[in-house]
Amino acid sequence: MADLARLSFNQMTAGKASLKEVAESCVRNGIQWIGPWRHAIGDNPAEAGKMLQDYGLKVSSLCRGGMFPAATIAERQKRIDDNLRAIDEAAALNTDLLVLVNGPAPDKDIDGARQMVVDGIGAIVNHAASRGVRLGIEPLHPMFAADRSVIVTMGHANEIAAQFSPHQVGLVVDVYHIWWDPQVYREIARTGERIFAFHVSDWIVPLPDTLMGRGMMGDGVIQIRRLREAVEAAGYQGPIEVEIFNQQLWDRHTDEIIRQVAERFIKLV
Amino acid sequence: MADLARLSFNQMTAGKASLKEVAESCVRNGIQWIGPWRHAIGDNPAEAGKMLQDYGLKVSSLCRGGMFPAATIAERQKRIDDNLRAIDEAAALNTDLLVLVNGPAPDKDIDGARQMVVDGIGAIVNHAASRGVRLGIEPLHPMFAADRSVIVTMGHANEIAAQFSPHQVGLVVDVYHIWWDPQVYREIARTGERIFAFHVSDWIVPLPDTLMGRGMMGDGVIQIRRLREAVEAAGYQGPIEVEIFNQQLWDRHTDEIIRQVAERFIKLV
Repeated sequence: MADLARLSFNQMTAGKASLKEVAESCVRNGIQWIGPWRHAIGDNPAEAGKMLQDYGLKVSSLCRGGMFPAATIAERQKRIDDNLRAIDEAAALNTDLLVLVNGPAPDKDIDGARQMVVDGIGAIVNHAASRGVRLGIEPLHPMFAADRSVIVTMGHANEIAAQFSPHQVGLVVDVYHIWWDPQVYREIARTGERIFAFHVSDWIVPLPDTLMGRGMMGDGVIQIRRLREAVEAAGYQGPIEVEIFNQQLWDRHTDEIIRQVAERFIKLV
Repeated sequence: MADLARLSFNQMTAGKASLKEVAESCVRNGIQWIGPWRHAIGDNPAEAGKMLQDYGLKVSSLCRGGMFPAATIAERQKRIDDNLRAIDEAAALNTDLLVLVNGPAPDKDIDGARQMVVDGIGAIVNHAASRGVRLGIEPLHPMFAADRSVIVTMGHANEIAAQFSPHQVGLVVDVYHIWWDPQVYREIARTGERIFAFHVSDWIVPLPDTLMGRGMMGDGVIQIRRLREAVEAAGYQGPIEVEIFNQQLWDRHTDEIIRQVAERFIKLV
């Protein structure tokens, strides 16, 4: 059974609520970790970091950097500059992990876009190291290959990560994105110390929506506990983040969402 | 440039039309191959086979067998019996290829379901050989892993096919299902003589629907010609089937659909 002390509540699981509202609800419900998004931390990340610290919350990661592929050199540089800012924001929030969602290709050249991801990580990795921030490549589900991430398998993410230090570049393993993969247990074992984060949710049948149709743990078909045990056997002992994009869930009160997340977490993760 | 003589029109690309209507439209528009579905051939497959032969059409494949995983032994046997009938129907239609869409797991045990697919193929392969019908495993896109097929990568399909004769069990390579895979060109080369069919359509952005949102060639992001050249470099010289499930397309006249398919095929495949 997963220990509630390891549950991290990803802010987007309560889509409509502000970071402050989510933080207060976490405290009320005994949650010790939070996963904020950049759009929610405002102009002053140090202030947001101090607020979370004052609430006694630990920050598991910042979502998200990445989005490296672009049609022009100038635009690719803009993306890199934005990632450098994201690294500073992560440091200001006292988290050692920036999640990278790597972006789609600007045209049909998916191989070219994949190389832009490698180049993009190469362009920011030293700055990340200097700020004590690790970079977590999140392979997304292949259904997002055309509009969100050209990195869609753990195998490929591992090939990219292997080009950098294992202390600096690793993977964000999200069950929603990787559960279907016939190589998933082999890849989890291979990832080992490069597992920088573990995210849980569920895959509902039929899928209500590719982006907004993630399910609460237990409502779908994913073998969540088996995957959790596999990432732990591979050496991961960090926080377990619950990240669910689901409109029906978002329509509920934040306290209600967090209480159900905690209950399902204890029972099913 | 692909030769129009290699175009096979999969019946479901003109969703609403009967097999006879599709066949007549193929003849009117110079299409030499057709890909029928089981639900459309009625109670008398020999008659449907004779009709297609009288129209001078060659049958590239029959869609579809498979759907092996089920919760009980009795239900799994029922699926196997249905596949044996599908093999007979393929033979009656004068095609040497039955497409296998292998089905979802009856519960959360995806590995168990994958073994049921291997066992199911093993249970029908001799009958297929005796009727001169080959079995084409079609890996579906991973977004169908929970509701249509536990076989979702070419790599996995190849592992399964390798347990049988290369003359008897191979792959159906459909660009919509495999384009995202970072291993796709390696796997196409590996598949070699086991490429039993090649299907084309396109991936539209944003995806209108997982099942009914396939695009006409040229409307999406798939590098169709590059994939076609890869399957040919691997040795495939058979028909190229156009299979598009798309409600907007289905709302049009069959002749109009077939003419656009032919035009796009010549220009883009």
